[in-house]
Amino acid sequence: MTTFSHPDFSAPRFANAPDARFEPAPADGVLPERFFSTTNLPTYVRVGGEWQMPREPRMDSAVVLDAAGELWVKEGRRVRKGERVAVGHAEDGSEGIYVHASAFLGDAAEGEFKFMTSEVSREKPIDYALMARILVEERERGGYPIWVTGPALVHSRARADMTWFVENGFVAALLAGNAVAVHDIEASIYGTTLGMTGSGEATSGGHGLHMRAINKVRAAGSIARAVEQGIITDGIMHACVTHEVPFVLTGSIRDDGPLPDVVTDAVAAQDAMKRHTTKATMAILIATALHAIATGNMLPAFVTEPDGSLRELATICVDSSEFVVSKLKDRGTHQAFGVVTNAQDFMHILRLYVERELDARAGGGFRAEAAAAAR
Amino acid sequence: MTTFSHPDFSAPRFANAPDARFEPAPADGVLPERFFSTTNLPTYVRVGGEWQMPREPRMDSAVVLDAAGELWVKEGRRVRKGERVAVGHAEDGSEGIYVHASAFLGDAAEGEFKFMTSEVSREKPIDYALMARILVEERERGGYPIWVTGPALVHSRARADMTWFVENGFVAALLAGNAVAVHDIEASIYGTTLGMTGSGEATSGGHGLHMRAINKVRAAGSIARAVEQGIITDGIMHACVTHEVPFVLTGSIRDDGPLPDVVTDAVAAQDAMKRHTTKATMAILIATALHAIATGNMLPAFVTEPDGSLRELATICVDSSEFVVSKLKDRGTHQAFGVVTNAQDFMHILRLYVERELDARAGGGFRAEAAAAAR
Amino acid sequence: MTTFSHPDFSAPRFANAPDARFEPAPADGVLPERFFSTTNLPTYVRVGGEWQMPREPRMDSAVVLDAAGELWVKEGRRVRKGERVAVGHAEDGSEGIYVHASAFLGDAAEGEFKFMTSEVSREKPIDYALMARILVEERERGGYPIWVTGPALVHSRARADMTWFVENGFVAALLAGNAVAVHDIEASIYGTTLGMTGSGEATSGGHGLHMRAINKVRAAGSIARAVEQGIITDGIMHACVTHEVPFVLTGSIRDDGPLPDVVTDAVAAQDAMKRHTTKATMAILIATALHAIATGNMLPAFVTEPDGSLRELATICVDSSEFVVSKLKDRGTHQAFGVVTNAQDFMHILRLYVERELDARAGGGFRAEAAAAAR
Amino acid sequence: MTTFSHPDFSAPRFANAPDARFEPAPADGVLPERFFSTTNLPTYVRVGGEWQMPREPRMDSAVVLDAAGELWVKEGRRVRKGERVAVGHAEDGSEGIYVHASAFLGDAAEGEFKFMTSEVSREKPIDYALMARILVEERERGGYPIWVTGPALVHSRARADMTWFVENGFVAALLAGNAVAVHDIEASIYGTTLGMTGSGEATSGGHGLHMRAINKVRAAGSIARAVEQGIITDGIMHACVTHEVPFVLTGSIRDDGPLPDVVTDAVAAQDAMKRHTTKATMAILIATALHAIATGNMLPAFVTEPDGSLRELATICVDSSEFVVSKLKDRGTHQAFGVVTNAQDFMHILRLYVERELDARAGGGFRAEAAAAAR
Repeated sequence: MTTFSHPDFSAPRFANAPDARFEPAPADGVLPERFFSTTNLPTYVRVGGEWQMPREPRMDSAVVLDAAGELWVKEGRRVRKGERVAVGHAEDGSEGIYVHASAFLGDAAEGEFKFMTSEVSREKPIDYALMARILVEERERGGYPIWVTGPALVHSRARADMTWFVENGFVAALLAGNAVAVHDIEASIYGTTLGMTGSGEATSGGHGLHMRAINKVRAAGSIARAVEQGIITDGIMHACVTHEVPFVLTGSIRDDGPLPDVVTDAVAAQDAMKRHTTKATMAILIATALHAIATGNMLPAFVTEPDGSLRELATICVDSSEFVVSKLKDRGTHQAFGVVTNAQDFMHILRLYVERELDARAGGGFRAEAAAAAR
Repeated sequence: MTTFSHPDFSAPRFANAPDARFEPAPADGVLPERFFSTTNLPTYVRVGGEWQMPREPRMDSAVVLDAAGELWVKEGRRVRKGERVAVGHAEDGSEGIYVHASAFLGDAAEGEFKFMTSEVSREKPIDYALMARILVEERERGGYPIWVTGPALVHSRARADMTWFVENGFVAALLAGNAVAVHDIEASIYGTTLGMTGSGEATSGGHGLHMRAINKVRAAGSIARAVEQGIITDGIMHACVTHEVPFVLTGSIRDDGPLPDVVTDAVAAQDAMKRHTTKATMAILIATALHAIATGNMLPAFVTEPDGSLRELATICVDSSEFVVSKLKDRGTHQAFGVVTNAQDFMHILRLYVERELDARAGGGFRAEAAAAAR
Repeated sequence: MTTFSHPDFSAPRFANAPDARFEPAPADGVLPERFFSTTNLPTYVRVGGEWQMPREPRMDSAVVLDAAGELWVKEGRRVRKGERVAVGHAEDGSEGIYVHASAFLGDAAEGEFKFMTSEVSREKPIDYALMARILVEERERGGYPIWVTGPALVHSRARADMTWFVENGFVAALLAGNAVAVHDIEASIYGTTLGMTGSGEATSGGHGLHMRAINKVRAAGSIARAVEQGIITDGIMHACVTHEVPFVLTGSIRDDGPLPDVVTDAVAAQDAMKRHTTKATMAILIATALHAIATGNMLPAFVTEPDGSLRELATICVDSSEFVVSKLKDRGTHQAFGVVTNAQDFMHILRLYVERELDARAGGGFRAEAAAAAR
Repeated sequence: MTTFSHPDFSAPRFANAPDARFEPAPADGVLPERFFSTTNLPTYVRVGGEWQMPREPRMDSAVVLDAAGELWVKEGRRVRKGERVAVGHAEDGSEGIYVHASAFLGDAAEGEFKFMTSEVSREKPIDYALMARILVEERERGGYPIWVTGPALVHSRARADMTWFVENGFVAALLAGNAVAVHDIEASIYGTTLGMTGSGEATSGGHGLHMRAINKVRAAGSIARAVEQGIITDGIMHACVTHEVPFVLTGSIRDDGPLPDVVTDAVAAQDAMKRHTTKATMAILIATALHAIATGNMLPAFVTEPDGSLRELATICVDSSEFVVSKLKDRGTHQAFGVVTNAQDFMHILRLYVERELDARAGGGFRAEAAAAAR
């Protein structure tokens, strides 16, 4: 059981500190404007030159000095008009109140208690504007952003958005598995993914459609040939072929088929991926634990610029739970920035923000142009 | 251990069925166009008038008749050119192949194996267009859509989007807890939520800001008074007050403060909520297990229209995992439609689609107007 | 928007039904013993020969007939002494109350509203006794239970428990990936997994230990040789080698090394797995989405007994969230029975119950013997 | 975009460092025993007095010096016999290799890259022996361990285990909500929880059973009276009443009933909880976000011993996902130790380990006694 020492109050910073100041509560259940807000850590309040610990410590409350000279931690709602309430924001003793944060939190806490210090949480805001700006800048300076995606991306609208990113030059290489290509191609040929329509309904006979799509591409010989032959007419793989964006489809034991383009040997597949990770200047990992961690394994945490300087390799990891991002960090990909959301929603909003960023850079001209181009 | 009977093949539907048809594989690893795609269920193939079960059954494969007259289930990649492959899509025996689905799946399966039959899954597409249309129609016909939200909604952009829905007449009543209002008001006064900035950084001194926000409203006496006094100048609660949208803030043991408007007694709080649930014609439950299930408890599954007819009460439940929606259904709110995503992304895209729907209905005029109004 | 019809109350079952019975509430907030407990579905109560819908419908409440002859749904706590409360358990109209369940829930509901109908939920009890019994019976009749596991299994105590199952004849074949073997062997050589000690501490220099373990086995040539040479002295792989339990280690793009025994080609790996799945009479899938779904793809839903009869292939899927099990079912492995828990806890309790089952079958003699053997 | 400086290699620690040592690979794909295992961080290797960065950096690989004097990071499997491979474990430059960890990870990393540094993860082992020892010690020294539980605890075997902890003096106070008591009492009277049997089957008529249980207790007047009257004959609440363990049942808007003992006012409920949290010397929070965070809000992070010394207040938080524990920490309960598992499995194993600990302390006598007492 961890134990802690009290601070050494004979040290100058404590010995020279003033007594804490107290102000009367202006009304029942209302605290003075500058009330000291407590934490759950050991707290010392200087009264009459003595450092004392208030009784009944808890967070989010006030420190009250009662008539008997006793200090209490009290919820604001329980404070009565006129009670003497400690005031001040400083927690370092300089205003007569000291929170012994380092004892519990270590030096990393910088002597201060804070909320929301976890690294990955769905409760944190997602800064799409920043991600869009990084992506646009990567395109402008000729960077090499690699996209690593799972099959969730193919469902419904996300497929159109991913296609848009490929067509518009934001994807230097696509790293994925057999399933991404299979469902993308199934969608092009049959309008379904895993036999499910774009609105999520299972179709009659649908369980075989991905197998029929695979069979057609196997008959054609490759995805590129199936595009040439007009079998695949739209979607992500179609965009990769027609825009000459390289893709690596790596095999797994889950694969149906697989498609002819799949690198089925895991070692050869790692080598194929690495040809892109060594060039990567940014990585976007979406809805895949397997491929994200595989990529994280071979991705440096940094980019060496042509002038020899170093910068962090921007790595965005999108998943519907915190788990994959934490796992990626636990495997050493410390630089990963986690976005906890649904892949299709991520793609849609990211595209929206990229369009806004482009529009802003073009002085408003981008959208009109893009809209025209889209028709 | 569940056991199953073979079908009675003397029944007319089987006795009169034709033999299965076989076609040669056109190339190594390529199946004939109309190949029968297998499932993992007991499967019977009629050959020479006899119903036989192929060996080595598995899903996503083909049925091959070998030279010895034996039937095998074989992956497409293992089929060699010229091998005889069963063809046909029917699974009911009418083309000589019968899948005994009802044995395993019961009658609910309608005799057919399908993928993606789970009720709630992040892997299903989200039909924002449909939700937007329902919401706009509710507004048009004077429905009573209730919004039930957790504090995740307040972070960052979602706060602006929720405010927009309140201001634009899509919210008949807001049901929430103390925390939603606290963080919304903290954001209005200090620009933070739980001491975290809009970009997710913890601020120095931030842990006390929500307590200071609460204290200011307690001093003012109520949220409405704090709006009047210019303490709260924007956000969700501000919009509710200024647009006269009723809100119910119900208390919980987690509450800091609480704010003066909070109904702290759980029984009185249920009564306050029920005054809105009995009028509800639609319910949108976002990022809250507690409030969603509480609302589900008191919400009928149906709406009785003025003419006495019945319709389902459209109930959308948004959460970052399947668990809350499944739990809500397990507690009897069968009509709930689950959307598995991040609350802030949901709000942003839903608003976008509602704007599009309004624009479409206004013949394109809405957006210009809205854009003008927003400035 | 789905709409519903009222039942046809001229049908004999309704026309001949009695009026509902009412009894006075015995005290404020207390209902008569046999009160009718409401649901959120359309409900009709026969009063004076007329079928009426009570007002303010909600679940978990009572039906009260007021002095004006009006019916209300009221929470028990709001019912006052003497108020007339509907009694009866039947929901089919036979006691004068009809719940129109089929309108909403379809015929699958068998006309009845039930809680906890989801297929997979952490809120459901786990029947370890049943699983233990099935496993012991499999061993007794010479079945072929295959175990498919992820690396979470190797941490800490679970490794010892898995080893026990291998050593005691409960594992016909082990299907796993490189990581399971790597961390098991790292544990044998260095006492760590991913450089983390058995109590979860990261060790200094630990990040390289799994690479050093791999290197030693590569130097030895195979896992079996490393066992022979005394490099690997305990654990799961050691038990497989010494007890001649076949294992298939399949490769993936995440693999470090890999170990010499790994089948790196995904297609060859599927073939290697299938040699076991075609013989399987039971499957236990633990803490792995990739391998579980891969196995599900090639596993029939049924076992054909030597006498030609069919039974369900008992398939247990253990994961820490509902997601993997639901996904497995969504991919067609309908027979999977989900256990939502931590893999190491699962293993420990399952072993405990298997020991109890063996003990019971041995008339109490097993444990003493096992305890003796273990020392 | 974060950028980093190269280290100052003129500093004495670098200037005085030796060149890195290299050894030949003993065979194709096999590294020398003491190979340096790479990370994904900027790495500098001293060759000929110069610090150079190897090309194609990635983790889990080796550093190879080619014939041209160029350094490469290479996976072990790609190293050929005789290639010169860097050896050494030190990452601080003292053996000629420097990993610039502080640039990326800050000082908290202590200059070293480690796996598994996240605070809460299902991938970490659970130390039941330690928790059992703490709990037994708390009982021995007369501590005040509070248990805070959600309704998941009541299902099936966990109910028996919780009852055992109450009966055996490990529970100073039980803090829970209405649902825990309702389902515990439903189980005592009807053998079901939420109408579901101990094996997880929904029962006919089951949806009303919890309401009938509530009604019986309301008729009796209190849980204690219902125990006296023989209505409640076993289980958790029965044990609390008969063993005089205080319990606080706090109300929420989700409550059915509620039971007469429930403190429905959230503010009064917090006060009731606080009477126990101020005395707490240990806290065990199981399967409840609401109650865990509420308790965390009012719990100090430390215990003041009678002699004035401080120790951490041991706080165990059990949940089926990392989310609740991370949230608890994000709300300031830094001392919480997370156990990610199913509540019923946790209870079962914890009890098993407590029994073992007691047995060990009693020199083996406890179990026999306990077994006798249990009959």
